[in-house]
Formats: sequence, structure tokens, C-alpha cells
Amino acid sequence: MEKRYIGLIRAKKPFMLPPMNNSAPPAANVVDWTHNGDRVPLSLRWLRMECPCFSCRVEQTSERRWIPGRADDFVATSIDQSEGSIEIVWASGHVTKYSPAQLQASFEVVNRAKLDTHLWGGGDEPTRFDHDAVCAGGPDRMDFLAMLLSEGVAILTGTPSIPGQVEVTMAALGLPLRETFSERVHDVRVDPAGYNIAHTAEGLPPHSDYPSYTHPPSGQVLHMLENDCEGGDSLVVDGWQAASVLRETASHLFEMLISVPVGFRQYSSDRESFARQPIVRLDPSGGIIGFRYSNQLMQPIAPTDPDFEDWLDAYLALTDYLTNPANQRRFRLDGGDALFVHGHRVLHGRSQYIPNAARHLQDCYFDFDDVLATSDRLRGLARAKPVAAAS
Amino acid sequence: MEKRYIGLIRAKKPFMLPPMNNSAPPAANVVDWTHNGDRVPLSLRWLRMECPCFSCRVEQTSERRWIPGRADDFVATSIDQSEGSIEIVWASGHVTKYSPAQLQASFEVVNRAKLDTHLWGGGDEPTRFDHDAVCAGGPDRMDFLAMLLSEGVAILTGTPSIPGQVEVTMAALGLPLRETFSERVHDVRVDPAGYNIAHTAEGLPPHSDYPSYTHPPSGQVLHMLENDCEGGDSLVVDGWQAASVLRETASHLFEMLISVPVGFRQYSSDRESFARQPIVRLDPSGGIIGFRYSNQLMQPIAPTDPDFEDWLDAYLALTDYLTNPANQRRFRLDGGDALFVHGHRVLHGRSQYIPNAARHLQDCYFDFDDVLATSDRLRGLARAKPVAAAS
Repeated sequence: MEKRYIGLIRAKKPFMLPPMNNSAPPAANVVDWTHNGDRVPLSLRWLRMECPCFSCRVEQTSERRWIPGRADDFVATSIDQSEGSIEIVWASGHVTKYSPAQLQASFEVVNRAKLDTHLWGGGDEPTRFDHDAVCAGGPDRMDFLAMLLSEGVAILTGTPSIPGQVEVTMAALGLPLRETFSERVHDVRVDPAGYNIAHTAEGLPPHSDYPSYTHPPSGQVLHMLENDCEGGDSLVVDGWQAASVLRETASHLFEMLISVPVGFRQYSSDRESFARQPIVRLDPSGGIIGFRYSNQLMQPIAPTDPDFEDWLDAYLALTDYLTNPANQRRFRLDGGDALFVHGHRVLHGRSQYIPNAARHLQDCYFDFDDVLATSDRLRGLARAKPVAAAS
Repeated sequence: MEKRYIGLIRAKKPFMLPPMNNSAPPAANVVDWTHNGDRVPLSLRWLRMECPCFSCRVEQTSERRWIPGRADDFVATSIDQSEGSIEIVWASGHVTKYSPAQLQASFEVVNRAKLDTHLWGGGDEPTRFDHDAVCAGGPDRMDFLAMLLSEGVAILTGTPSIPGQVEVTMAALGLPLRETFSERVHDVRVDPAGYNIAHTAEGLPPHSDYPSYTHPPSGQVLHMLENDCEGGDSLVVDGWQAASVLRETASHLFEMLISVPVGFRQYSSDRESFARQPIVRLDPSGGIIGFRYSNQLMQPIAPTDPDFEDWLDAYLALTDYLTNPANQRRFRLDGGDALFVHGHRVLHGRSQYIPNAARHLQDCYFDFDDVLATSDRLRGLARAKPVAAAS
């Protein structure tokens, strides 16, 4: 089988002011911006692209209106600096002005959307937060979102045990739902007509939902309305930790997980979903950003695929990690508990139960991006308005 | 900047029966399945993983219940073949039986979900289909879905010009909506309070919506309710074709597009979305599967990023291609036209218009996976029931 290498790994570094070096002459295409004693070499072309004026931008929305396309777009005829402000006149006659605050704001966005991830093994139960306090906003909501971002799992307690409540709660948190082919809010209880093992009383090994989409739902909330049955305890396990362990201890197996696409299928009598993707997905820096695992929904790969045996070794090692109780957090969801998980990271499951009493759960999906964006806005990392222009 | 290579490119090949070779002795871990004169070497471990019996699978849903984990899971004590059927007794005592039809079904899934993509340049208008005929189902729907899958764009004509109709149409097609932070069905008309340039009468250069999500909506439908203004014609352009051209003519620039993450942001006074991703995304085979482009929503990358100048060269070349009318399909959306696009491939835009008459469009998003899955089901490529067990 032909194998070639793709892509570049880029080192993950926050944007840092470079060390000051007053003796270096500026390159022709660079403006040495000096501010507060720091010297930052700014590309002329960067300064043209980011021009904040309301000819280049739509004032109503701050979107870029200007489209580069002329040969002399980036030719400057004069550059002036004064007290951290920059003014450039371009060959076209256009004038670009930056205040120090506008330049600083451009740097801020470079450092946005950083996920401060804490990987975990088994042991402690997920952290619980009070539903009403989190919905009210303020520090409780920020703490809840920070935990969900960091560990990929958190529980709200005291969620009203009303069918449909999960949608009300999500609206209060400002998190839009993601629909799949099933109901918008999905009932999980014993259902002889159900299309998924969750609709039986059987135990569910750790899994992520809808790996049968190219991009499975990246967030999931499971709201337990009532849970009076014997058995049916919950578990979660950190898929990124599992993949990281494999990467460190058996990199040839990890390589199988990032390179061999596997089919997953979820279907009902009239609906269908199918995707073929590697189990682990990396970002261009090589960081783990995606994980899908469902022993129950996984489809066969080609029996003559020359990578099959190596891939299966990787799958078996991964399954061994994920199903080992020592690597899981085990707990019970009582009525009123709503379990939030990062759907591309944290797998969930349950033990078998005896359907001798009420057990009713409703779940739905959301986009984990919205958790990070909401958190950034609450923490003041995302400005609601552009920085005012220089006077 | 540290650069390393990641990932393996796997050659894209359909699963094929290997050439018959009666003289080759089977490897110890392989069953040579002979059927209709073909000999297919089947891995013993593959046969155990895919065991179709209702102890290993949930009869109600055909999901895999069996979880591998014992040292002797894959040790066979006897293997028998007869007329294409296989029966294996394992060390655990478990018995696996395959009928020829069951084995054949396992091979079918290996070839599923193939996108038969036709890249295009400028010229012809997108193909139009009759709304009512497509909603009725049958060959018209299959033709419409096939066109949408192949070219990433298709138009329904005669869509009732009723606000909210787009949601009715999508339900008829069995395509669930994807919500974002804006309304579930989104009104596009001049709106002084709008958060996006689409809410003005300005021209819109080709763009994809919500690049500010890690996984932007992969499908979008734009339903024109009325369009009586002067100007405001529509255009689409094939982003995969643009990326392919760049890959062929300037691979060092293409490399920038797949490796350098760029921020995109869409926000309103109380909502926020932000993602940092490369413009082009590849699958593990090196095929182009994702494309995001929005000159208006793009955020600055670090001004001191050593890749900035090369990346900008790539961005300028790409912008030059995308904004060149010779590479675009230009057409007018009249009232009743619903434009469907593959959101990770086909960019859309419009010319400026004079807001001197009615112009009202409603759009919403969906998951392009559902188009392929629906098409596979209609074409008989996805069975609604597992193949019956051998008698």
C-alpha cells in the first residue's frame, strides 16, 4: 500500500513579544513597532490586511470589506510612528491608521480559544454544580464552563425533573442544540422498537455517540429524570488520556488510530448515518482534538486491508484501557442530574440495570465550540465591539 | 519554527477481490474463503470481530455486543468451510457461522459512502430541479441528491414562497437542521441591527458560512422568497477546484493552506463564535474534504508568525482564483428558488443590490453527511436490516 507523509506539524506557541533588539535594522517589508519599550517587527502586509478603517471594514459588523487583489496593494509610500500609533500611506492613496489599543487588540485574538486541558484517569467522580446557580450566570457559570472545558465532563444537580427541561436549560446557558436523525431531545428508556442498544436494559460499554457522522456531536448532555432501578450506574472515561497513553507507550499503535479510517453506522428503519474516519484526530500541531469510539456501532474494515492486523492490535489495546474500571470514573446519576460531556473526548457508558422501576433519561447534543466561545465572552477575552479608532 | 511530519497517507482503493492463487498455502491466521471461484484470504481475527450471531450482536439493532478482551479470544480450535459458508469454533467454546450472503454484506459496507465528486470551473448555471417532484421522492429525489453530492450545488425551483417553508422542505427531504447561534431559520434582508454583512445591501464576495466553528455547517440551503431588487445576483465557486489548482500549480502555497491555522470570528452583541483552523482540510488519504473561506470574518494571525508571508502568498493566490468571475457560476435566484450548497466546498456570494424593492431570503444549515446517507439508503447501498443468519 502506498504511504506518504502529509502535513506539517506546527509548534504550539502563544504569541510572544520577541526580545528587544534595538540594533537590528528593519527589513524592508517590516515596520518596527515600538511600544512600552518593546519592539515588535510587524509585517507591512499584515498591517494592510488588518487595516481597521471603516472603508476597509463594515462599521456595522467590523467585518473586513476590503479584498486584496491589486499588484500595488501592499506598497507603502510613507510610514509614520508616534507614541505607539502607526500611520501608513499606500501607493493606492489609501491611509491606514492604528492606535496602540487597536494593535494590542489584534494581538489578543491571536491568543484566543486556547483550551486549558486537564487529562484524567479513573477515581474521583465528576464535579457537580448547582443547576439554578449556573443558569443564573456569574461566577458559578464560569466555574462550570471552565470545568467542562478542562476535564470534558461536569454535572448539574437539581435540574428540574420535567420532560423537555434539558432544552430549557441549554437555552438558559446560550448553547444551541445540534439535531441528528433522531428526536431533537431524545428519550432513553427501555423501548422494544428502539434502534440503539441504549433502548435496552443492557450495560453500555464506554462509547461516544454518533461516530457515524464525519463530525460527531462535540457536546452531549444526558439529563436523568428518574432513576429508581437496580443497577444502571454511570461511567465516563477520558479518551484523550487513553490515546495519549498509547502514544507514549506504543507509538506504532497510535499511528494506526490516526491513519486508518473505520466505518461507523447508526440507523433505524427509515434513517441512516454512516461515516468512515480514523478513531483519533489530530490538529496541525499534532495535538489530539478528536476521538470516536463505539464498539457497538463500528463496521468492518476491508478484511484484506494490509493494515488490519496492526490496526486491530491498536484497537484491542485501546479497548483494554477504556474498559478497565481503574481508568473510569464511576458514579450514579440520580433524578435531577444532568451529565455534560465533551463528545470528541469523554466516553460515557452505564452498567446493566433491572428494569423493575422507573428509569428515564433525556439527552441532546450541542457544539463544544459554543462552550469555549461562551466562556471567552464571559471572561472578557472576546470583545463585543471593535476597539475605537484612533482620534 | 519546529516542523515535523504527521500522519500516513493511505492509498484510496476500493475493496477488491484479490487474484485467485490456488497454490498459496494459507497463513496460520487466515481463512482462505473460496466462493464463486474466488479465493479471499480472511483474517481469523477479522472473522471473530465481525461474528454475526445474536450472542455477539444485539438482535434488536444489529450492534456489536461482544467486546474483545480475553487472551484466547482469537484462538480457533476448528475451521470448516462448505459451499461458501464458514464455521469456526473458538477456544472459548463460542461458535461463529457465516453464510456467503453475510460475508458479502460485510464487504459491501467497506465500499460505502464514496463521494463521486465532479469538480467544476465557471460557466454553466447550477442544475435546477422541481421542488415538488424532489419532495415526492423517487428518481427525482435521487437525481437531485446525486447532483448535490457530485457538484456540491443544486437548485430547487417552485419552492413555495412562504416564510418558514425551508424547514418544511428539509423535513420532507429527511435532512435535520443544524442550528448556530442565530435563528434556526435565518432571515437575510437589509437589517440595520444585523451582525453580518449579509444584513446590508453590499455585495458579498464568495465565502462559506460560519468558518468560526471548528466544523462549520457542512450543508446550507438559501431559500429566496422574493427578489425584486435591481442587482443582487448570485454566484457560487468550487473551493475544492480552487485548492486543487493551487495544489497542482504551487504546492508550496497549498501546503500553507493545509498547515497554518487561521482564526475566524462571527459574533453579535450577545453571542460569539470563534475557531482557528487551516483553510483546507485533508482526509488521511490526502484528499481534500474541507474548505473554509471568508475574507470578511477572517482574523489576524500572529504578525510575527514566520509562516505569515508564505501563508499570505497562498491566501492572495486563492483569493485571486475565487474572485475571478471566470471561475464562478453566476445566476439569479428568483422567488421560489432554493439554493443548496456543500458548505465545506462550494462558496456562495452575491452582487451588490439597490434596496428599492422586496428582497427576502431565508437560510438554514444541515449536515452534508445526511445527504450521502440518505442517498445511499435510497440507492439500496445501505440495508435497513442485517442479512439473515445462515440456517
